[in-house]
Amino acid sequence: MQTEEQLRDFILNGQLYYIPHVSLDCAIFGYHEQQLKLLLIKHKAIKDWCLPGGYIKRTETLVQAANRNVKERTGIDNLFLQQFKTFGDPDRAKTSQFDEDKWFETVGIRIDKTNWLIDQTISVGFYAITDFSRTEPQSDVLAVQCAWFDIDSLPKLDFDHDEMVKEALHTMRVQLYHYPIGYNLLPEKFTLSEIHALYETLLGKKLDISNFPKKLIALGLLKKLDEKRSIGAHRSPHLYMFDKEKYDEALKEGLVLS
Amino acid sequence: MQTEEQLRDFILNGQLYYIPHVSLDCAIFGYHEQQLKLLLIKHKAIKDWCLPGGYIKRTETLVQAANRNVKERTGIDNLFLQQFKTFGDPDRAKTSQFDEDKWFETVGIRIDKTNWLIDQTISVGFYAITDFSRTEPQSDVLAVQCAWFDIDSLPKLDFDHDEMVKEALHTMRVQLYHYPIGYNLLPEKFTLSEIHALYETLLGKKLDISNFPKKLIALGLLKKLDEKRSIGAHRSPHLYMFDKEKYDEALKEGLVLS
Repeated sequence: MQTEEQLRDFILNGQLYYIPHVSLDCAIFGYHEQQLKLLLIKHKAIKDWCLPGGYIKRTETLVQAANRNVKERTGIDNLFLQQFKTFGDPDRAKTSQFDEDKWFETVGIRIDKTNWLIDQTISVGFYAITDFSRTEPQSDVLAVQCAWFDIDSLPKLDFDHDEMVKEALHTMRVQLYHYPIGYNLLPEKFTLSEIHALYETLLGKKLDISNFPKKLIALGLLKKLDEKRSIGAHRSPHLYMFDKEKYDEALKEGLVLS
Repeated sequence: MQTEEQLRDFILNGQLYYIPHVSLDCAIFGYHEQQLKLLLIKHKAIKDWCLPGGYIKRTETLVQAANRNVKERTGIDNLFLQQFKTFGDPDRAKTSQFDEDKWFETVGIRIDKTNWLIDQTISVGFYAITDFSRTEPQSDVLAVQCAWFDIDSLPKLDFDHDEMVKEALHTMRVQLYHYPIGYNLLPEKFTLSEIHALYETLLGKKLDISNFPKKLIALGLLKKLDEKRSIGAHRSPHLYMFDKEKYDEALKEGLVLS
């Protein structure tokens, strides 16, 4: 939603090209050098921060809609994206602190009870992972701030988004055992210590370093290169890279890593 | 939907007490003595068999709606129930072979393009597991047949339900490594062979018998009893039962079994 005119049309006629009663929310996780962050937005008319989200066009699949939303916020297309849960508690919007005057100030329209945006909505949750250092978080007319927050010091979120984050994190951590996640989160060539640190950070716990990368090698997902990186006297670990073909296959098939 | 009057009201006024544009479908798996089945329904006006499903009342959570649907079909309340994926492909109903005349014959109402049931719908998928020998599949005014089918010889299903079953089966099998599933699928007291056979049947593959039940015992989920079952000369295996308290905790926490 980049212009006020687009926004007006969305509010007044959106039900013609979006599916009413259904939204999506995206927990976009960001990794970089052993830090895990989450992307949040601040709506001008809502007190607390929120997950970025939006509606689903009538011509889109759910994953296309999620990809469009994630791209709008991060500038990156085709991130690793997984649907994790749909949220439909009838009370899910009850705690929201929506400021009607600020809304009117922003969009210049008061919406009445028959407007498509007012009625009960269920929301499909997706999570994505990217390297946060490569993104430029995007705000817009309604979402006036968009920023990365450390996963361990998130603010209280609006709607049921605290629960969404908890569920997204849980699903992402379970799926780390089933899907190889790491491409684009590491340099093209990396050491076993680096991929180990990536998995430890995403999981939020220690992993047995002697076993873990071996599994990825045994599955053919990692290729050992003839190059080493010199990081000090007597320390020059081998470099590895992903076998892109096997990696994509494993992503599709959900190979069990554990 | 047990009476024609309820059905008429549902068709004409359903949008007042159900959320439009959102349905749910349930893949109800049935286990008994090494057989895995799936519950299907046959609508009078639709050519192919379907997963049982329905709409979500505005006052219900999604899981309450799923439980209501599953109970209506199986007669059993509070089955192990998991949301697995939401389906929103804009083409998902395109292949459906709906017979308008048979529909009219059944309900006595022709519905027009403004009816709430006609517009695009996304569907939240749940799976459940029960002991099929304890159920009595229920048909109704619209769904004139309801029956168990062997998982290996399912008919072609309507809508995107073939894909739903594939996804439900995949999720159920992945979750078997994270959740203990077995309560109510086995006799109260059972042998290690019986629980091993249950997991092999649900997974659709062989499991290492020497390791698998040990994990369940190590996690405190299974209690070894002082009783044995006599099944022949020199064959009297120990009996086990679930530690219900630890079992419920593991169900909630998603304990990793693998």
